[in-house]
Amino acid sequence: MIGIGEKMSTKTTAKRPAKKIAKMADDNARKDILRGLLKKTRFDKVRSMLEFNLQAGHAQDLQLPDGTVQIDDVDNSEAHSRLHMIIDSVIDQILTSGRPSVEVPKRSSSNIIYDEKNDLLLLGQETAIKAFHSLSSVTDITRLARVVQIIHDLLTEGIHGTKREIFYSDVDLFEEQGNSDAVIEDASALLHTTRNSTNIVASAKGVCIGRLRLRDKSDIIDCESLGSGGWGISPMLDNIEILESDAEFVLVVEKDAAVIRLTEDRWWKKYPCIIITAKGAADIATRMFLRRITKELRLPTFTLVDSDPYGHYIHSVYMRGSKRLSYETPFLATPNIHLLGVLARDLDEYKVPQKCRLKMDVQDIKRAKEMLDEEFIKNNKPWKEDLELMLARKEKAEIQALSQHGFKYLTDDYLPMKFSTGDWI
Amino acid sequence: MIGIGEKMSTKTTAKRPAKKIAKMADDNARKDILRGLLKKTRFDKVRSMLEFNLQAGHAQDLQLPDGTVQIDDVDNSEAHSRLHMIIDSVIDQILTSGRPSVEVPKRSSSNIIYDEKNDLLLLGQETAIKAFHSLSSVTDITRLARVVQIIHDLLTEGIHGTKREIFYSDVDLFEEQGNSDAVIEDASALLHTTRNSTNIVASAKGVCIGRLRLRDKSDIIDCESLGSGGWGISPMLDNIEILESDAEFVLVVEKDAAVIRLTEDRWWKKYPCIIITAKGAADIATRMFLRRITKELRLPTFTLVDSDPYGHYIHSVYMRGSKRLSYETPFLATPNIHLLGVLARDLDEYKVPQKCRLKMDVQDIKRAKEMLDEEFIKNNKPWKEDLELMLARKEKAEIQALSQHGFKYLTDDYLPMKFSTGDWI
Repeated sequence: MIGIGEKMSTKTTAKRPAKKIAKMADDNARKDILRGLLKKTRFDKVRSMLEFNLQAGHAQDLQLPDGTVQIDDVDNSEAHSRLHMIIDSVIDQILTSGRPSVEVPKRSSSNIIYDEKNDLLLLGQETAIKAFHSLSSVTDITRLARVVQIIHDLLTEGIHGTKREIFYSDVDLFEEQGNSDAVIEDASALLHTTRNSTNIVASAKGVCIGRLRLRDKSDIIDCESLGSGGWGISPMLDNIEILESDAEFVLVVEKDAAVIRLTEDRWWKKYPCIIITAKGAADIATRMFLRRITKELRLPTFTLVDSDPYGHYIHSVYMRGSKRLSYETPFLATPNIHLLGVLARDLDEYKVPQKCRLKMDVQDIKRAKEMLDEEFIKNNKPWKEDLELMLARKEKAEIQALSQHGFKYLTDDYLPMKFSTGDWI
Repeated sequence: MIGIGEKMSTKTTAKRPAKKIAKMADDNARKDILRGLLKKTRFDKVRSMLEFNLQAGHAQDLQLPDGTVQIDDVDNSEAHSRLHMIIDSVIDQILTSGRPSVEVPKRSSSNIIYDEKNDLLLLGQETAIKAFHSLSSVTDITRLARVVQIIHDLLTEGIHGTKREIFYSDVDLFEEQGNSDAVIEDASALLHTTRNSTNIVASAKGVCIGRLRLRDKSDIIDCESLGSGGWGISPMLDNIEILESDAEFVLVVEKDAAVIRLTEDRWWKKYPCIIITAKGAADIATRMFLRRITKELRLPTFTLVDSDPYGHYIHSVYMRGSKRLSYETPFLATPNIHLLGVLARDLDEYKVPQKCRLKMDVQDIKRAKEMLDEEFIKNNKPWKEDLELMLARKEKAEIQALSQHGFKYLTDDYLPMKFSTGDWI
């Protein structure tokens, strides 16, 4: 039986080359950069957050609490060597006991731990033993071995596959995609890595635009010079290197319609920022990409969502992840993200007329109540109050409702006012 | 009463500056370009199509049959002047008869005409008279006047709005979005322009990647150097200028998973092409963008979709538009697009095993039968045969099923073989 948790958790997480700004911020040049950045800042409250981030340990890796499993985002060669370690151990067991098995971290809800300090969902240390010699687990372990083999092939060839392709590569064995998906998650839990580290990726629908320069293999991409279209966020984030940025904050926008307004205005030229949208609910690649730029560039980050329970939920997914993906949470979550708006209290503050507000339906009310039951919202008084206000009024409104005041109200009035007054959650 | 059809239809369509390749291809330099392009071509059959397109009138505007309405894609100043013409006429009517009205082309199915020669759905010449003095049309005409005013504001400010924003800008009048949407379509029909010409845009979800250089206002975008992410297609296509390309064909891909394989491989470097995906069903901006590059660069264009009725339907929407948007068809459709695959006959030809094929469900069978009833499929024997084969077997398969033969089978075997043998519809 093999349990690799302890060995692996002592390794350092970051395998990527040090990034320009993150690295420079650690040395003597930090103050100069800081001075340069602050000179250009428009919003005092955002400036002090940026200053704090640059001086404090915001960019450090999270310290996970006891009883949780350390998962790493690793590069190709580290994933390879972990994989070989597992296989070597299986061979050893075959030679010594003749009864090989592997120990896979459990992904069931009983093994999900809420880390109050970091406000994150994490994977606990419960494991399941999958043995080749047991009738109850032989199918599972055979499928797992096949996926491990496929991952090995992907890593060796340096290419990426999707879950659907993995399923199709051995339909007889997997029978249906639910089975291969589950085993894919097991395989990355077994390696104590993110799924991205196994070169199995999901399709991405996000777009990034604004003050950011990236490298994708040999291509240098300047997200400021891509017109109003922006850069389609690649699902193969392991090939992406964040080069530099003179942005002072990141704005994550739920609705593409709001992004149209921002990009048409080239809003990032006036207000130095990076704009990201997943065009609706957050997909994995967009969340991972957001986390990376926020962490590496130490930027204050804000969401602009509809003023409804679903908008708040989207914000929460960027902030803390979803239960299903618990063991990847640290690589997907942006814990210090702020809910800029549209807040329930904004509807009066920014005079959204009654006729532009919508009635919450049964589903909305149910979701709002569920969210108010969550620990992380109970612990966040302003957020709790805003959801309670929304629920008391049973009213919601979309970002676009602000266009009641004119098409440029969002970019010329609402956002600058929100950022200037620091009126976020 | 005002009917502006005849006056407007005599105007020329293209208001954009002449594009480099399209223009050069018309003069003496054409043969040199052609020779240069052909030297690099990999696929004989694609080469002869490209040669034909460059020499023939493929890039000319469509000749619409009698009895249909000419719709133009116009620039800001032309849209402005058409709008003023309408308003001037209304003012004239107020001064002379005191009973102003406008004549709006009908958008109902009875006024949709199938143009057999060009294989397109077009808008007929039936009109509806909307009068201010009639109780039955006063609400409609008031809403229409308001939308015309909003369009005027958008054009004057040089900004774009979305349908949702238009609705929110006067909720009292429009009451629900269905009403403002209908009037928005009426307004562009009234102006005999595409909706894009009125600066009312829909959000875009497409991505473009490969051998194409664009300009978006002052930004030059090289779609070949955007890594694996690509350029997010902008919904504000009136700001986009197609600069140049050394692509020999365009490949439109339904599934993002297939795009991941193509981009990871930098497939356009080996096979000079432009890759476009709408990540599923085709949105308006992606269709309009595809039409423009196909037309301006005279490139042979192919779709790669799932081998199921929905995939064939997506292909048909790129090719001919959907009924709902009939009057914009000429600006959204790419009539000479070819269905490259995955064809029903490919499943045997490329040895997709039985276990990787899926059973067609009731919905699939219904859609396949509906498609076989369409004139444009009845007139296209190979397409008809392929759908009949699919229906006879009641089998479908996804693009990803090809990964049964290995993750690189799509890029290294299937696509090169299809293009080499000219095995498309």
